Amino acid sequence: MNDYARNDRNRVRRAHQRASYDQEAIHGLFDRAVICHVAYAIGEQPFITPTTHWRQGRRLFWHGSAAGRMACRLRQGVACSLCVSFLDGLVLARSAFHHSLNYRSAMAYGMARAVEDPAEKARALQAMIERLYPGRWPHIRPPSAQEMKATTVIAMDIEDAVMKSRSGPPVDDDEDHALDVWAGVLPVARAFAAAEDDPLLRKGIACPKVPLNPVLEP
Amino acid sequence: MNDYARNDRNRVRRAHQRASYDQEAIHGLFDRAVICHVAYAIGEQPFITPTTHWRQGRRLFWHGSAAGRMACRLRQGVACSLCVSFLDGLVLARSAFHHSLNYRSAMAYGMARAVEDPAEKARALQAMIERLYPGRWPHIRPPSAQEMKATTVIAMDIEDAVMKSRSGPPVDDDEDHALDVWAGVLPVARAFAAAEDDPLLRKGIACPKVPLNPVLEP
Repeated sequence: MNDYARNDRNRVRRAHQRASYDQEAIHGLFDRAVICHVAYAIGEQPFITPTTHWRQGRRLFWHGSAAGRMACRLRQGVACSLCVSFLDGLVLARSAFHHSLNYRSAMAYGMARAVEDPAEKARALQAMIERLYPGRWPHIRPPSAQEMKATTVIAMDIEDAVMKSRSGPPVDDDEDHALDVWAGVLPVARAFAAAEDDPLLRKGIACPKVPLNPVLEP
Repeated sequence: MNDYARNDRNRVRRAHQRASYDQEAIHGLFDRAVICHVAYAIGEQPFITPTTHWRQGRRLFWHGSAAGRMACRLRQGVACSLCVSFLDGLVLARSAFHHSLNYRSAMAYGMARAVEDPAEKARALQAMIERLYPGRWPHIRPPSAQEMKATTVIAMDIEDAVMKSRSGPPVDDDEDHALDVWAGVLPVARAFAAAEDDPLLRKGIACPKVPLNPVLEP
């Protein structure tokens, strides 16, 4: 009921049992990822930019230097895709063919545009900081006019989206189970480590206990 | 001396002090990453596929289902880009503008092609397994003719490449150091966790001590 519609752009063709079009699940992956990869094309050449994103409803945002290649291109309002992915483990099977990865990934497709309205742009940059560090915004210096000018905020309304995932042990062909080789999963462990103070930190300022949005996975 | 040539496609326009064109450093990033993101376009629409890759000299390889969207497109010999990235930390500054990420990323540009020669394709798939799991190949069942047919191996000679990285503490404007807010870095810790046996593993088979290429970072 709450699925993204399937079409030629987002339908997973192979291993479709690993795909889901469920909005809530897809949005949850976008919300957990700190970074994403954005793809766009200039002429025939595709480019990829890793960056950080944030989401409001069915709209994704990210930002970049106003003079950078990505912002210059996306400001023109072009087709775009954004992908988040988590590597969860390496899957070692008894046959070369069934070696695999455990992962979760989500893609969104839409048209990029620059957020031009100054109030909307200011709210968007605040939302970027608040997504990563809830409660931090009132304590930091907001962007100056010059910093705002140097920054382009991109918005993309999600037209289609899809997620794909694999988990669990290897799935070998029956006859391969007799082989004398180890099979299993090497899981990936990811965590945020202990905070490191800026060497220039003023004395008496401690790191807040929960500076990070707890939903984030590194 | 050993740099990739700079041109309009790979030159970093902003924060160029974070860029490097050094072949050895760039190749090192490709070799350490388990997964990459591949971008390609169909008409005006860019697509991204997360996958695993491997490298020989200035040539990158990856594979996919022969019936999948990516393989169907790349087999036509089209412009492509491949990106690996590591999120190393979150950088909390005293101003919104100087918040940043610590990261390492590398991009390569070139023309994709399918590896059609059966012997070359078989060697490539062996190299994929041996890159991740040195010494494993002789112990597993090699691909059957049908499995080979179901798999497309893509090769891309690197025409241009570039890497970009940031490390270290936040860099705030002098006048912001007086602000009463914590600043520093939240590092990301990534590791491979303890191996999990396949529940169907035959008794008496132990996980090899070093199943993974030690250069890999999850």
